[in-house]
Amino acid sequence: MSLLAVGSVAFDDLETPSGRRENVLGGSATYFSLSASHFTPVAIVAVVGEDFGPEQMKVFEGKPIDLQGLDRAKGKSFRWKGAYGQDLNTATTLDTQLNVFADFHPNLPEATRRCPFLFLGNIAPGLQLNVVNQMAQRPRWIALDTMNFWIEGDREALFEVLKAIDILLVNEAEARAISGERNLVKACRAIQTLGPRIVVVKRGEYGAVLAAPEGLFMAPAYPLEDVCDPTGAGDTFAGGFLGHLASTGSLSLEDLKEALLRGTVMASFTVEAFGTERLAAVTQAQIQERLAAFKAMIRPSGI
Amino acid sequence: MSLLAVGSVAFDDLETPSGRRENVLGGSATYFSLSASHFTPVAIVAVVGEDFGPEQMKVFEGKPIDLQGLDRAKGKSFRWKGAYGQDLNTATTLDTQLNVFADFHPNLPEATRRCPFLFLGNIAPGLQLNVVNQMAQRPRWIALDTMNFWIEGDREALFEVLKAIDILLVNEAEARAISGERNLVKACRAIQTLGPRIVVVKRGEYGAVLAAPEGLFMAPAYPLEDVCDPTGAGDTFAGGFLGHLASTGSLSLEDLKEALLRGTVMASFTVEAFGTERLAAVTQAQIQERLAAFKAMIRPSGI
Repeated sequence: MSLLAVGSVAFDDLETPSGRRENVLGGSATYFSLSASHFTPVAIVAVVGEDFGPEQMKVFEGKPIDLQGLDRAKGKSFRWKGAYGQDLNTATTLDTQLNVFADFHPNLPEATRRCPFLFLGNIAPGLQLNVVNQMAQRPRWIALDTMNFWIEGDREALFEVLKAIDILLVNEAEARAISGERNLVKACRAIQTLGPRIVVVKRGEYGAVLAAPEGLFMAPAYPLEDVCDPTGAGDTFAGGFLGHLASTGSLSLEDLKEALLRGTVMASFTVEAFGTERLAAVTQAQIQERLAAFKAMIRPSGI
Repeated sequence: MSLLAVGSVAFDDLETPSGRRENVLGGSATYFSLSASHFTPVAIVAVVGEDFGPEQMKVFEGKPIDLQGLDRAKGKSFRWKGAYGQDLNTATTLDTQLNVFADFHPNLPEATRRCPFLFLGNIAPGLQLNVVNQMAQRPRWIALDTMNFWIEGDREALFEVLKAIDILLVNEAEARAISGERNLVKACRAIQTLGPRIVVVKRGEYGAVLAAPEGLFMAPAYPLEDVCDPTGAGDTFAGGFLGHLASTGSLSLEDLKEALLRGTVMASFTVEAFGTERLAAVTQAQIQERLAAFKAMIRPSGI
């Protein structure tokens, strides 16, 4: 495997203007790995409960996703219940049951400790740092996702782990909360002084902004006529983005651009159906076709 | 002249996180013509009061802006007082005094009635239609701006004028209100069945989306580190967009893309200072430089 991802595997109850679904397989590591696996082999480190069975395993089957690090604990898996109104940009959390995730202490299988690329999904900053320290050698790059809960509640530990990483993926509110800057360009520049030299700000239906040492890159989201369920869009984006970077081994601006467009296109598939339904079924040909269509829609004319 | 613009010339009192300014020259026709004049000769049809003097005239001097159609009426000019908080996307209107604008009945000077390109700024749909009927011949294209006040309050008249136009410029909320569609792509397609074959949706700091018969094009806004005053950004965008289209005479997708990028860049200058301060002073070299930098930030790699 080339890309190691630490995160959550969960069951979600979802309610959107398109309908309802219960007990849908979700979690950041699920969306991330399904997306990244189109570009590079992935290994997951996460924890599930006794309710995770053959039906859930099937979703990962036949894909280059290594589940050695998927720990099975006594009890129930992490469960999240959320609802979206007409504004699909924001979810209302109706219920969160951490269950086995409450005691999650990532323990990396020996084979994964030499992965050249590491993605630290949204867990406690202390655990993220612990994962970094378990690596047998410093990965070629480390990417990290976080959320306001940690930015506000565990700021010191988060800033400690930020020093150790190369790529930060956050949304606009998180970028502002970390940097204290309201302006997005200033926020990115401020974050770049804290550790990560590459900052990606996800803006939901408005696309993403990338700040790298070589310059800025911006792209809108892929325009869909029907958005069914936005759950997992951010993790799917991260999977496509980092999956491409792991496959090339490069962090050049050109590769970062390509990575951002792939992340965007992968996310557009996820939101077309509930949970991982569409993402798990999408083909390489469909990805390439949408990627070409997307580039045509954002390419400025002339030179 | 090649591009005729009907709209407002006003005095604004502005309050933003960057400061306050009073009696600043504003209005849709002001921002529009200053912006468009970098690309094509413009003629304005608007009304001002006795408070509009040599100081205001100076802003237009030395630019290819024909003011023959600037009617001087007894009384005061249109006045608007607005404030922006930390979220620069939305203005709070503190006061509106229509003054001479309340009785504005555009009367096109003879010389302007054969303009090949017409922009109908945001005024009552009935007046917009009246302007169309004053033209000696059907312009090669007609573009229109409107607002929720007319979409809700004068829907029938607005839909009548929509039938007569080629290009509609609106923001997201307006696109939804006209079409009844929440999804942006669906909203554009619905509007295209009402008359305008080209729809441009302005999304403020998130850029713009263009729907044309040949396809979609999307671009983010130009990323600024300091936004001083967003007033006039939409009208400046329209001026750059339509100014470029008038200069080429083409509505090909390639020209529409170029036009959208020019509109975006012009708007980025306007918001850097209060009122028309920056827009009125910007040079062709500065425009070209920023346009090139912007294209580099949005151009996908590869082919």
